[in-house]
Amino acid sequence: MCHHRCVLHRTYDSQNCSIARTLEIVGERWTLLVLRDCFLGVRRFDDFQRDLGVARNVLADRLARLVDEGLLEKRRYQERPERFEYRLTDKGRDLWPILHAMASWGDEHAAPHGPPRLFLHRDCGGRISERRVCERCGAELEVRDVEVRDGPGLEAVA
Amino acid sequence: MCHHRCVLHRTYDSQNCSIARTLEIVGERWTLLVLRDCFLGVRRFDDFQRDLGVARNVLADRLARLVDEGLLEKRRYQERPERFEYRLTDKGRDLWPILHAMASWGDEHAAPHGPPRLFLHRDCGGRISERRVCERCGAELEVRDVEVRDGPGLEAVA
Repeated sequence: MCHHRCVLHRTYDSQNCSIARTLEIVGERWTLLVLRDCFLGVRRFDDFQRDLGVARNVLADRLARLVDEGLLEKRRYQERPERFEYRLTDKGRDLWPILHAMASWGDEHAAPHGPPRLFLHRDCGGRISERRVCERCGAELEVRDVEVRDGPGLEAVA
Repeated sequence: MCHHRCVLHRTYDSQNCSIARTLEIVGERWTLLVLRDCFLGVRRFDDFQRDLGVARNVLADRLARLVDEGLLEKRRYQERPERFEYRLTDKGRDLWPILHAMASWGDEHAAPHGPPRLFLHRDCGGRISERRVCERCGAELEVRDVEVRDGPGLEAVA
C-alpha cells in the first residue's frame, strides 16, 4: 500500500473497516487459537480445554460467541448424557487464509528451529506457498486439500 | 486441513505453533489496528491516537512492543522539540498477507454495504484477489503495488 500519500481519510471512521470488523469477531484472546484447533480436527470442549489450557469459563464464552457469529456449529453427538461438538461452518472455514497467513509469517519470522508443522497438498505432497498454491503441482488449494504433518521445529522445542 | 484424522498430536505443545507465536507478537488488542494504520500511511503518535481513539499509555505500549519485536522502526524526524515517527520494517511489511486476508474475510462476511475500502493494483487499477493476484492483469502483487481507494461501504455507514 502506498506509504507516502494515503494517509487516512479525514472523515474516516476507524471501525468502518473490514479488518476492524474481522477483529471484532475473531480478535479476542484465545479465539484464533480455538479456531486453529478446529482446523486441526478438535471438536470437543474437553479437547479444546486440554490443548489450550484456558479457563473453562473463557473457553465456553469463546465457543458460544463463535456459534452466535455463525463460525461454528454446535451439534449433539450423544444423547445420554447429552454431549455436543463444534464444527466449522463455511463462514468459519473461510478464515483459513488468515490462519495460513499467520502460520506463514510465524514460520518465516518466529520459528528458529524450522516450522513446527508442515502444510502439504494432500494429492501430491507438495508444500503450500504463502499464496496457498501447491509448490509442486501449481494447484490453487482450499483447506480441504491440505494435510498437516509434524515439521522439524516440533521436536526441537517440545 | 483434514477434519477427521488430524486430531492434535498427543505430545503437542499448543504454543509450539507458528500461529500461536504470531499471535504472541501481534495478537494483543489494538496491535493489528496500529499495524493497519501503518500500512495506510500513518506514522505519528498523535495520528494513531486520533484515528484509533485508544488510550495514550496503551498506544505507547503497543508501539514500543512493535519496535522491540522489529516490526516498526522509530525514527526522529524533528530535533527541537524531538519528534519521532514509526515506519514498518521489512519484517513488519511481511504481515501484509495477514491483514489482507482479514480485509478479504471482512469484505465477504462483515460488510453489508460493500467494502469500505478497495485495494487496487496501482499499475492497472485491477482489484486484488484474496490470493493477492491482480484480477485484471494476473500479476502477483506485493504491498508496494497496492493502492487504496474509498469503497462503497465507506459512506454508507459513516
